[in-house]
Amino acid sequence: MKSLEQFMEEIAPVLTAFRRTLHQKPELGFTEYVTTYLLGKKLTDLGFTIHMGKEALESRDRMGVPPNEFLHLQEERSRLEGVEESWLDKMRGGHTGLVATLDTGQPGPHMAFRFDIDALPIRESTDPEHFPAKGNFSSSHDGVMHACGHDGHAAIGLGVATFLTQYKDQLSGKFTLLFQPAEEGGRGAKAMVKKGWLHQVDYFASGHIGIRNTKLGHVYATTNSFLASSKINVTYKGKAAHAGLEPEKGKNALLAAAAASIHLYTIPRHSDGASRINVGKLLAGAGRNIIADEAQLEMETRGETTTINQYMLNEALRILRASGELYGVETVIDVVGDTVEAECNRDWIQWLNEAAEASPFISEVHDVLPLKASEDVTYMINEVQKQGGSATFMVFGTELKNGHHHHAFDFEEGVLQVAVDAFARLILKRSHQKEEGTR
Amino acid sequence: MKSLEQFMEEIAPVLTAFRRTLHQKPELGFTEYVTTYLLGKKLTDLGFTIHMGKEALESRDRMGVPPNEFLHLQEERSRLEGVEESWLDKMRGGHTGLVATLDTGQPGPHMAFRFDIDALPIRESTDPEHFPAKGNFSSSHDGVMHACGHDGHAAIGLGVATFLTQYKDQLSGKFTLLFQPAEEGGRGAKAMVKKGWLHQVDYFASGHIGIRNTKLGHVYATTNSFLASSKINVTYKGKAAHAGLEPEKGKNALLAAAAASIHLYTIPRHSDGASRINVGKLLAGAGRNIIADEAQLEMETRGETTTINQYMLNEALRILRASGELYGVETVIDVVGDTVEAECNRDWIQWLNEAAEASPFISEVHDVLPLKASEDVTYMINEVQKQGGSATFMVFGTELKNGHHHHAFDFEEGVLQVAVDAFARLILKRSHQKEEGTR
Amino acid sequence: MKSLEQFMEEIAPVLTAFRRTLHQKPELGFTEYVTTYLLGKKLTDLGFTIHMGKEALESRDRMGVPPNEFLHLQEERSRLEGVEESWLDKMRGGHTGLVATLDTGQPGPHMAFRFDIDALPIRESTDPEHFPAKGNFSSSHDGVMHACGHDGHAAIGLGVATFLTQYKDQLSGKFTLLFQPAEEGGRGAKAMVKKGWLHQVDYFASGHIGIRNTKLGHVYATTNSFLASSKINVTYKGKAAHAGLEPEKGKNALLAAAAASIHLYTIPRHSDGASRINVGKLLAGAGRNIIADEAQLEMETRGETTTINQYMLNEALRILRASGELYGVETVIDVVGDTVEAECNRDWIQWLNEAAEASPFISEVHDVLPLKASEDVTYMINEVQKQGGSATFMVFGTELKNGHHHHAFDFEEGVLQVAVDAFARLILKRSHQKEEGTR
Amino acid sequence: MKSLEQFMEEIAPVLTAFRRTLHQKPELGFTEYVTTYLLGKKLTDLGFTIHMGKEALESRDRMGVPPNEFLHLQEERSRLEGVEESWLDKMRGGHTGLVATLDTGQPGPHMAFRFDIDALPIRESTDPEHFPAKGNFSSSHDGVMHACGHDGHAAIGLGVATFLTQYKDQLSGKFTLLFQPAEEGGRGAKAMVKKGWLHQVDYFASGHIGIRNTKLGHVYATTNSFLASSKINVTYKGKAAHAGLEPEKGKNALLAAAAASIHLYTIPRHSDGASRINVGKLLAGAGRNIIADEAQLEMETRGETTTINQYMLNEALRILRASGELYGVETVIDVVGDTVEAECNRDWIQWLNEAAEASPFISEVHDVLPLKASEDVTYMINEVQKQGGSATFMVFGTELKNGHHHHAFDFEEGVLQVAVDAFARLILKRSHQKEEGTR
Repeated sequence: MKSLEQFMEEIAPVLTAFRRTLHQKPELGFTEYVTTYLLGKKLTDLGFTIHMGKEALESRDRMGVPPNEFLHLQEERSRLEGVEESWLDKMRGGHTGLVATLDTGQPGPHMAFRFDIDALPIRESTDPEHFPAKGNFSSSHDGVMHACGHDGHAAIGLGVATFLTQYKDQLSGKFTLLFQPAEEGGRGAKAMVKKGWLHQVDYFASGHIGIRNTKLGHVYATTNSFLASSKINVTYKGKAAHAGLEPEKGKNALLAAAAASIHLYTIPRHSDGASRINVGKLLAGAGRNIIADEAQLEMETRGETTTINQYMLNEALRILRASGELYGVETVIDVVGDTVEAECNRDWIQWLNEAAEASPFISEVHDVLPLKASEDVTYMINEVQKQGGSATFMVFGTELKNGHHHHAFDFEEGVLQVAVDAFARLILKRSHQKEEGTR
Repeated sequence: MKSLEQFMEEIAPVLTAFRRTLHQKPELGFTEYVTTYLLGKKLTDLGFTIHMGKEALESRDRMGVPPNEFLHLQEERSRLEGVEESWLDKMRGGHTGLVATLDTGQPGPHMAFRFDIDALPIRESTDPEHFPAKGNFSSSHDGVMHACGHDGHAAIGLGVATFLTQYKDQLSGKFTLLFQPAEEGGRGAKAMVKKGWLHQVDYFASGHIGIRNTKLGHVYATTNSFLASSKINVTYKGKAAHAGLEPEKGKNALLAAAAASIHLYTIPRHSDGASRINVGKLLAGAGRNIIADEAQLEMETRGETTTINQYMLNEALRILRASGELYGVETVIDVVGDTVEAECNRDWIQWLNEAAEASPFISEVHDVLPLKASEDVTYMINEVQKQGGSATFMVFGTELKNGHHHHAFDFEEGVLQVAVDAFARLILKRSHQKEEGTR
Repeated sequence: MKSLEQFMEEIAPVLTAFRRTLHQKPELGFTEYVTTYLLGKKLTDLGFTIHMGKEALESRDRMGVPPNEFLHLQEERSRLEGVEESWLDKMRGGHTGLVATLDTGQPGPHMAFRFDIDALPIRESTDPEHFPAKGNFSSSHDGVMHACGHDGHAAIGLGVATFLTQYKDQLSGKFTLLFQPAEEGGRGAKAMVKKGWLHQVDYFASGHIGIRNTKLGHVYATTNSFLASSKINVTYKGKAAHAGLEPEKGKNALLAAAAASIHLYTIPRHSDGASRINVGKLLAGAGRNIIADEAQLEMETRGETTTINQYMLNEALRILRASGELYGVETVIDVVGDTVEAECNRDWIQWLNEAAEASPFISEVHDVLPLKASEDVTYMINEVQKQGGSATFMVFGTELKNGHHHHAFDFEEGVLQVAVDAFARLILKRSHQKEEGTR
Repeated sequence: MKSLEQFMEEIAPVLTAFRRTLHQKPELGFTEYVTTYLLGKKLTDLGFTIHMGKEALESRDRMGVPPNEFLHLQEERSRLEGVEESWLDKMRGGHTGLVATLDTGQPGPHMAFRFDIDALPIRESTDPEHFPAKGNFSSSHDGVMHACGHDGHAAIGLGVATFLTQYKDQLSGKFTLLFQPAEEGGRGAKAMVKKGWLHQVDYFASGHIGIRNTKLGHVYATTNSFLASSKINVTYKGKAAHAGLEPEKGKNALLAAAAASIHLYTIPRHSDGASRINVGKLLAGAGRNIIADEAQLEMETRGETTTINQYMLNEALRILRASGELYGVETVIDVVGDTVEAECNRDWIQWLNEAAEASPFISEVHDVLPLKASEDVTYMINEVQKQGGSATFMVFGTELKNGHHHHAFDFEEGVLQVAVDAFARLILKRSHQKEEGTR
């Protein structure tokens, strides 16, 4: 059997190459047709059983699925980019993402890992100093970009899958890899959970590249301070009128949206912990001299606990409706995503420390990184823990050229190796270690 | 029979003296206990039949009647100031104002005149140059002042009554003098109309001293541009909470009132004519570190037509309720007054021109003064016209030291003579002139 | 010499054909490259002297010129649509519109007429019942439409030009036809005035098809109630920040724009006459979880008089800046258009009545139509009157399928004949009638 | 020497009686004339050296001193209630509070204790079940009430003083008792600090009765989570105008205050910790039909750290000024109070545990109570610690009938004994224990 060091050396160029391939084909949540196809082909080749489409996620539990017209356009685009018709048929209608399973045949724990694969609606920098530009692997999808490192996450998932097939004989129990669509906006995890993939999982791990001031080689065993959150789209429908001739005939949707925006920010702070509110986008009206008959808001609430977020959401819903009433316009509210709070199991701190001892890639293990952001992996963590399993969300350190969601975001590609190494060593340590009584 | 010139000479000092007496005893709407008593005594002495209390106005049609505690205090005050118990008994509960009638016994037209008698919640200037201060007849009621000339209106009414009794033999038909309470805020006229006093009146006239840049001796035969209006009190009832310890527990009535104030002013202009909105007073909260649990607004809407005012009122009511809903507080709305639009009959222009020909007091007759303000005399004008009568609201010119509602408001007392002269000459001309078919 | 009736019969199909050609090529203000070219070619053929580009208008006095990138694209588009390079060279950079002059060689008055030629950013209805759809001459420029009848105005101008050349021998004096770009938003007239085209004009006329409930054959000799107006673009520049991680680091441009929108509508009504305010468009922010770093407003003020509009503009500018200050963001204000008030000369009522006597097309002449809207023709009217000339803006009645600026706006094409007939008859009557002493 | 148990038995009725006396004479911050006088007489009798007026606090460092008219009225009131002229002379102009010092003559540590003595502008409940009503010692000052237990604090201070004089022979070092005025609003502590009273103090302790769900006999050795805060009064000065006649002439102070209120609450949450904002009071305008020319706000900001509060204050100041600018009115801002953050020394946990061992009154010692409120004792704590001393702020448990600042607030009087016992036992333990090197 080859040494782990040798495996890591062999896998490194594969990780980089696959990451760059995906970086050129970034796809928004629930339109990851090419990404899913490429992953599916490779995982099949590796010997995994593949579950796609409505087998991978519960269709109705997806949130914030794009309109059909948009899905159709993206499906056509993916067909032109080479997705086979039979594969596309399974994914049609925004059923992207996949689950890959492997059973060692030996009794042992059930381990599950999650990798998110979607990109962001950001136009990638064309600065020649931007690393993907230099390396000639910039996004070929105008206005869409892997600006949060999920191209790296997918590559790490492929690396872990490769490890599992090569080291299958040394392992016991079974393995489930979740390649989740639509993490941005907290829209995809719940649908995978509802499909039952986390049922009786003993060990669950996921992770994120980067996050603030971290360094290559540093790994954070757990994360805390997940913010529960809700994502909401609002449309106000009023009535147009000529602003000079008959201003009293209009129903001003622009003013309703403006009022909502301002009053939303006045929701009182909560004494039990941090809360957040943001209206990130407001589009209203068609022309200068017409009273605006439609306005759209994209907004979100967050809370340090699920209870605080629920408080923020309740207040926000009342304010949104009352703002419509203020200006006599119709209010249409669509909750398009949400995440909950979660607590990682602290066992993983010890486990990662043990696993890292012999690693040439992991130079420091930190106990915890406070995320202070929202991640729908929390649905999975909660599900696993509810059934007695142990779950974590790690952070793999890397310097970032620019922060997440920046149009020139970039990470050190060495982090891909670090992450695969961490997963591999944890798998080797835990694969036989099913605790008594956890089930 | 004495000449009109002689009568005017005799009445002049009486007018001034009575005006100054009332100026010292200003009383707010529906608490004109002393004013009504003084008028009643004099009118009785003159031989008029007096109708007081619930005989003078329809109790339930009064608007914005002060709270009982305040009425009791004012009744006690008036008793200490000399109002007889039997008179007070009729007026208790805010039933002030009176109607005085006189029948000549000769067939002829029914003429009615209205004089308003209430004062304003303004603390009178103590500037020694202020004419009432110099003349030693400033208000003795702290914080209340005749700053709109209704002391003069009441004196004019007494002058007209004196004229009628002295010239009764030359006149025919019958006469009704309405001494109306609570004109400020548009609260008293409707209750007199509802009592039926304008029933089948042939000629109706009322008037106002001053108004903007007018001159002594100039009389405006009619007024137009009355603004229809609504007067509204609003209370928001929320929930107090400590702003540091538990801000999320409060329901912020102050913010509801602030939001209402701002959004009310955003009601669109109406293309059919002038509209107005004002929140004149906002009182909210008790202490810096407590979330305010109560807030009060005093506001008004106006419109160049009754339709426009109704539009403003409807918009305002929706905004007031939605603002309560914005902050989750209870909204209590009380419409405490209103006025409507009206059109004076243009006949009076000719009539006043004829009447003024021989007058040594009236130097110029103008057709019309655009009021651009609200006056509840409009209820009376409309009622008279609806039944075929002819009605006007005149303006008697005078220079003003300061504008209406100013704490050093003052008019030229000579205007009292001008006004009585105008009424007297119109009466002499019209008393026999009942048009065929007006009924 | 052919009779006017015969001329009108011959010109009718020409008017319709040219109007439909233009309807298929609608062009936004300052990008009327094709429209100007087509007009220029035809006017040259007719024997007019053509003045284009910077000869037609004062470059720096144009308002709200689109950005260079947009102009370049439109210039390329027009080249592909057949505009000759030499013509395009004169117009580059948004110097569209043209002036056509004709001198009869006989002493006589100087008459000037203005026709506006720009279209609107409206996507034309594809309803098969929409007349241009049925007639197969819908807009071929996606998102741009002649929804205000300026295609008709340009056709009328061509009709008037044709009349002038055919009847030149019967006329005296000289003629100036102004084909004005960018009337929408009040952006083009001033630049033509500044170039001096209205210098010592004796008679000036312009007009508009339709306007509210008018009927084919009815012509309004004058218009009043022009609203003075200002058109303003505002950009707020703030600072982006992650709304979950570091909300305090952001500078929220969306909230500044929302606050501005609401507070702008609270500008008090003006007691001297009608005023208007509208924020017709608000675009802010990029993503739900990012504090918006940029927001754009398109807004306008209006006033029944230039003074009232100036009051509205001054208030608006202060509020716009203070709203930026409220949220600590930079405020960039660009006044992109304005119109002033104007009074048509009432002489035209008599003149049009005389002219219409023998017309088989004009069934009724009305004195005046109150416009209650803004039109930058007012700059021209004022300029002509300042120098002693007489000016009017007529309205040519037609039923409208839908109101101006509606995506299925449509007028009766017979109105083109009515308008040409009215101009022609006025020209015949006035061409010799230079009043003594008007200069 | 009498036992501590015997002393506590003797002092109990004295504590209760003095607390009730003060409860009947509640006095607002900087008008505690009677309170200071009563304390001063008793402390003099006990043998303390008394420092009053400008000797007790730095006059110019007092914040939020009431207007002179109000001070005069209160001084007169206190004279009528028996304060001697010579005492009053020292206190005139709001120089209330006093410092009492005692030197044992033995070398030892310098211990200082602070007791706050002011009341609140709350009308006390007249419910016969309210304990002060039942006990016949309700407030005799209408609208003022000891609703935060400072009557008890002053009584505890007198108890501690009595203990010190009776046990002087067993003690060493010197003692400073600070009876601080105007704690409410954070207005008095800084002025005492600036006078130098905390100079080289070795041990400093203060405390509060009650606070949330505490129990009689439980004592919290330290407090944390003090919120830094700023107290701000704002006046907007606009221009009155008649809302019907000339709305455009007004400058609306009410709308400026309303806008400020709303926009203040939109200040973004701070990611470093809790922040607070509150506008507790808004008074604006005089009458319904007048555009309000003046408006007043009472508001506050808070922060978990002094830095966060400074951020809130900076944002608030900008918003306040911009809101004035929005409506073209003058903005007058007065910062009338502030508090800072502080950390109690944790030594006191051990010390109180030792002290409480033998106490029959203290049943449980808790380490810390998170205050989450503002207290200007933090100025004193910081001053002591800066010079090397050790400081704490204790909480003495008691059930409360109603929360602090409630009009029927009431505590268990047994807590007075518990508090004196705790101070006494800490003094006995620490009076000889000056640590090496603390100075």
